[in-house]
Amino acid sequence: MNVFKEFEDFIENGYKTYIPHVCIDCVIFGYHDHRLKILLSQIESLNGLSLPGGYIKRTDTMDEAASRIVEERTSIKGLYLQQYKTFGGPDRVKFNEIDLDRLAQIPLLKKLKSSWLIDQTISIGYYAITDFSLSKPQPGFMDRSCEWYDIDKIPSLLFDHNQMVKDALQTLRSQLYYQPIAQNLLPGKFTLTEIHAVYETILDKKLDIRNFPKKMAFLGLITKLNEKRNIGPHRAPFLYTFNKKKYKKALELGVTLS
Amino acid sequence: MNVFKEFEDFIENGYKTYIPHVCIDCVIFGYHDHRLKILLSQIESLNGLSLPGGYIKRTDTMDEAASRIVEERTSIKGLYLQQYKTFGGPDRVKFNEIDLDRLAQIPLLKKLKSSWLIDQTISIGYYAITDFSLSKPQPGFMDRSCEWYDIDKIPSLLFDHNQMVKDALQTLRSQLYYQPIAQNLLPGKFTLTEIHAVYETILDKKLDIRNFPKKMAFLGLITKLNEKRNIGPHRAPFLYTFNKKKYKKALELGVTLS
Repeated sequence: MNVFKEFEDFIENGYKTYIPHVCIDCVIFGYHDHRLKILLSQIESLNGLSLPGGYIKRTDTMDEAASRIVEERTSIKGLYLQQYKTFGGPDRVKFNEIDLDRLAQIPLLKKLKSSWLIDQTISIGYYAITDFSLSKPQPGFMDRSCEWYDIDKIPSLLFDHNQMVKDALQTLRSQLYYQPIAQNLLPGKFTLTEIHAVYETILDKKLDIRNFPKKMAFLGLITKLNEKRNIGPHRAPFLYTFNKKKYKKALELGVTLS
Repeated sequence: MNVFKEFEDFIENGYKTYIPHVCIDCVIFGYHDHRLKILLSQIESLNGLSLPGGYIKRTDTMDEAASRIVEERTSIKGLYLQQYKTFGGPDRVKFNEIDLDRLAQIPLLKKLKSSWLIDQTISIGYYAITDFSLSKPQPGFMDRSCEWYDIDKIPSLLFDHNQMVKDALQTLRSQLYYQPIAQNLLPGKFTLTEIHAVYETILDKKLDIRNFPKKMAFLGLITKLNEKRNIGPHRAPFLYTFNKKKYKKALELGVTLS
């Protein structure tokens, strides 16, 4: 089957392979050098921007389905991925505001209006995080483009996707001190300046550089190595590494003050 | 329509009123005087214990649906309620292990086997918390009983409900220092001994009573009042109150060490 036939078959018979009424949308965060971005797709037929998303095969777990979506768009395998919230309710997708008759004129979408896709659907939100300088975004079959957007310049998105981004960002921030998020954005050995930048950028606020190592040491999340990096004359900062056991413990026991 | 007719109609036509393939299950925690429990229903026809659950009306938000389920079982309105994780995958309900032919012999369930209910369903997990001494558990229409079970004596449950309980408990613990959970279990003014018991019981570990006030003060979550409670000769401990603004801030900004 070629991709066009395959897509038409998905619209007509997809409910046999995928679970109807349920989809996944992914907020893929990208960090690099003090900048935080998210990946957005321009959907040709709807003339709007949306989060990368898709449906769940009946034979897949939800994590497998989310993994596939993220891998297809970023071309990176095994990204750090977390389910964070499920979105639903009668108002999340307003089908009455979508001009289904206009869409029916697009040959590939002629059967969309009467299909299984046009009914109330809940969306399971996942977030992923990567170094955006390492990814090659790939538009999907129905997308005009797929690109990185600065987190503070997110335009108006389709459906409830702005709310999804907002909630994903809040989750990312609240988990930064007990999930191994920064580990996915830094090399195995890093300087205090580097990890400080990750924390400042994700939290979007200034963190006193003199207190920062104390906080991290208090939480026990990073370990100072007896090793320095030479970055210039008279400049050789100490290197640090993540204490993976502490993160694991923080994750199991909850916030680490107890 | 009487309740029996109504139930038969739910099996046959429920997909018109409720969203198929999606349900809600609720882990309702109950705390009182050093004890933590959860509410479980004994389902007559399946001869097993399960979490209170239900389907989502197409006209309701998910929070409204979860609220209704929790209120029906506890007889308490407006309990603290949080969505915590969605469960899915081909193995979460093993229909091939359920004897549907036996169930079809129960008059009310004769149409179950060929109904919309017998198909892969994802479950949105919510947790609620209350003082169990205030609730009057109410069994549902198909339940033999609905009772409180000690958290450390949870028997084997139907479907993936043991996993749901495990994940809910982990979420409850990890949110205890930044969500207003304890506020729902204590009066507006309380002693250090009382809040210390809530934290120890939920976290299931000893917290040094001398350090506990320092930790809470460090986080700014409680405020000491210029007021004491007389509980006996020579015993008049100071009263405390929750600092709701700080909880709100902790919730918005993430863990409060930043």
